[in-house]
Amino acid sequence: MTEKIAPRVPRGMRDILPEKNILRQYVIGQIRQVFEAFGFEPLETPAVELWETLMGKYGPEAEKLIYEVQHRGGKERLALRYDLSVPLARVVAQYPHLPKPFRRYQIAPVWRAERPQKGRYREFYQCDADIVGSASMLADAEVIHLIYEVLQRLGFRAFTIHINHRKLITGLGQFAGVPQDLLGGLYRAVDKWERIGPEGVRDELLKARVPQEAAERLLGLLQGTQGPSRAVLQALRAQMASYQVALEGIAQLEELIGYLEALEVPEAAYRVDVSMVRGLEYYTGPVYETTVEEPRIGSITGGGRYDGLVGLFSEQSLPATGTTLGIERIIDVMEELQMYPPNLGGTVVQVLVAHFGAGTLPAALRLARDLRRAGWPTELYYEEARVGDQIRYALRKGIPFVAILGPDEVASGAASLRNLGTQEQVTVPLEDVVPRLEAWQAARTTAT
Amino acid sequence: MTEKIAPRVPRGMRDILPEKNILRQYVIGQIRQVFEAFGFEPLETPAVELWETLMGKYGPEAEKLIYEVQHRGGKERLALRYDLSVPLARVVAQYPHLPKPFRRYQIAPVWRAERPQKGRYREFYQCDADIVGSASMLADAEVIHLIYEVLQRLGFRAFTIHINHRKLITGLGQFAGVPQDLLGGLYRAVDKWERIGPEGVRDELLKARVPQEAAERLLGLLQGTQGPSRAVLQALRAQMASYQVALEGIAQLEELIGYLEALEVPEAAYRVDVSMVRGLEYYTGPVYETTVEEPRIGSITGGGRYDGLVGLFSEQSLPATGTTLGIERIIDVMEELQMYPPNLGGTVVQVLVAHFGAGTLPAALRLARDLRRAGWPTELYYEEARVGDQIRYALRKGIPFVAILGPDEVASGAASLRNLGTQEQVTVPLEDVVPRLEAWQAARTTAT
Repeated sequence: MTEKIAPRVPRGMRDILPEKNILRQYVIGQIRQVFEAFGFEPLETPAVELWETLMGKYGPEAEKLIYEVQHRGGKERLALRYDLSVPLARVVAQYPHLPKPFRRYQIAPVWRAERPQKGRYREFYQCDADIVGSASMLADAEVIHLIYEVLQRLGFRAFTIHINHRKLITGLGQFAGVPQDLLGGLYRAVDKWERIGPEGVRDELLKARVPQEAAERLLGLLQGTQGPSRAVLQALRAQMASYQVALEGIAQLEELIGYLEALEVPEAAYRVDVSMVRGLEYYTGPVYETTVEEPRIGSITGGGRYDGLVGLFSEQSLPATGTTLGIERIIDVMEELQMYPPNLGGTVVQVLVAHFGAGTLPAALRLARDLRRAGWPTELYYEEARVGDQIRYALRKGIPFVAILGPDEVASGAASLRNLGTQEQVTVPLEDVVPRLEAWQAARTTAT
Repeated sequence: MTEKIAPRVPRGMRDILPEKNILRQYVIGQIRQVFEAFGFEPLETPAVELWETLMGKYGPEAEKLIYEVQHRGGKERLALRYDLSVPLARVVAQYPHLPKPFRRYQIAPVWRAERPQKGRYREFYQCDADIVGSASMLADAEVIHLIYEVLQRLGFRAFTIHINHRKLITGLGQFAGVPQDLLGGLYRAVDKWERIGPEGVRDELLKARVPQEAAERLLGLLQGTQGPSRAVLQALRAQMASYQVALEGIAQLEELIGYLEALEVPEAAYRVDVSMVRGLEYYTGPVYETTVEEPRIGSITGGGRYDGLVGLFSEQSLPATGTTLGIERIIDVMEELQMYPPNLGGTVVQVLVAHFGAGTLPAALRLARDLRRAGWPTELYYEEARVGDQIRYALRKGIPFVAILGPDEVASGAASLRNLGTQEQVTVPLEDVVPRLEAWQAARTTAT
């Protein structure tokens, strides 16, 4: 026990110190509130799953990134969860009594041994809301509405929810008329439309050995389906009229958009985007993804309908739809754009109780207790120190208010309050401490 | 992907389904509020630590229970955290700039491959609040006060915080006058005083090969130190007068009790208890542990001062004190004694919006939206069904209120509201929906 161990975390892992974590907790708290307002119930699943539960769901490349887990004498093959969707599918199959539709949210870490880089960690939070057991487009509309409300609540203004449909994507392949083995490259090229534009996509398609004529047909379709969602759906109906699977997708999207209109989600917030292709094999219906314009960091939500996943664990399959909020990116963006409420400081503490040592300490302890019971996060200064030093400590820590108990205050049943933002200082009877702090806090919130 | 996988979790792990998780979240939310009121800041550390960080801190028996973690091509030796204290000590050493005293809380899972049994899982939450960087007994008093306030807030009434001091425990060994190698057995025997009484402890001591005379001396001391804390400390002062180390412990406990008196923590809530021995090697000062009388489930909190732990990671050691709340046991007890607020149901949903299908759906979508924006957790019924079936669904799920939108309501800009608890049903204009629900909710809360 005497040799010093260098204090460090594993490669790709991190500590979240309070100053940053207070901001994270704020974001997570806001999201939880919206999730619950939409009637999603909290579920927790273990971090450690059976190896066999995870394998065969994500594709071989992803599965290389899964962490194995074992303990002395353990006979099971174990792994850290890679996402929250496969555990959800397992849960729904395992507990058939869960009332349907089952709407659950889960905000929890997952583990992937990816190459660490800026903003990408091997342990990171996922934030999922899913509805299992309804095939209705109402469920998809509510998930999209949820995304809209979460981003509104967090203060995002310029974002677009791109909506496509798995059957429309299949139709796109048929429309191009290329052999099966070229489809992967075709979809990857099309998906870059937003970022690299028509010329870029043409290059990519040709590089992927898509014949020139097919590439031009596709570019024509993509260029003819820009604009408001209703117009895009109409154009798609005309152009894809001979592809039955595409028409099925278009009909579902028309129903979906109708619900978004009824919900008065502004047209600018979403867009039917036939070029948006989501990679996961298991999607079967509408898919959705959100991009923000500023800063350009790619998508901050992703999801869609996956009617087959539960069937991997159960004789009875169940339709399902849902979304993942890219909470780590959302937090990064909010920090970059300073989107947090101005009063969210580097500390939870709102009041420091300063005192003059032994004689004033009992009164200081009681004042701290009363402030805490009134819901005011309060710190008591522990050491004997001059009041000036105690105030400097509060300033350094970012605590906005100081309550000072000197012998005079104790003798007269009062406290001196200092507002470190305005430098105002007043001496008030103890029963007026909370009302005065509330008034200062209210002024502080509206001033900034 | 076609072979069905039996849906199950690893041995000793569990899913926490929403119905139970809503209760857990309530407990954790209450505890977080109290922690933050006391000025503790939220810290998060990764689930995966370096193997070397954990080894040599818990003793060889405990270390057998640690889970190893690895990924393909990974070169580091990794492990799942075993508790939250060692990660805290690592953090404090790793980030010397953290302002001191550093008060942090962390509520997070830890992993131990113990033999699973009723109520004991291999993944479980710990809930810690610690103060690093102050040697003052004020810090210990605040931690004990925190325990008191948390248990009060959760509705615990009959509990006792047992307080002892590591130096008093050392003094106890000197007082008994037995050789070093008998001390472990002696302490284990003494620690059972509460459960098995004087006769039981005598048997245990003799079984542990403590000489008869030493055993009688100890029993005399223990019997002479029952009662109110001040009297116990006085008796200890007299009996332990020739053991310097014990006197140091007694002086610190006197200071500590003085602060608890200033805080007006009722005398019945705590007790200086020289028979309470906490096992962990790293304690150096006051130690504390809480028992509840009903049901008898052992201790629900444990903690104390550990001034040496940070020094294992850093040239500069730092004094520290804190507590773990046994949140899993607390939750079990609260369930057993039905200590939850009566309105905390099996669902987060407070309102079901029922409707008459297509014609009424747009209005139903907008009502659900407005209820959600007003903070009411709301579910919209997705399928076409008779209103009676929709109400039965709400009853089955435990949703207390239903808002019904039929063609008449839509035509007149109204909604029918049904209170499933009282069977009351009223039709009100849309703008009165929220006030009426609030009135019903308030009546519901006070009625129970």
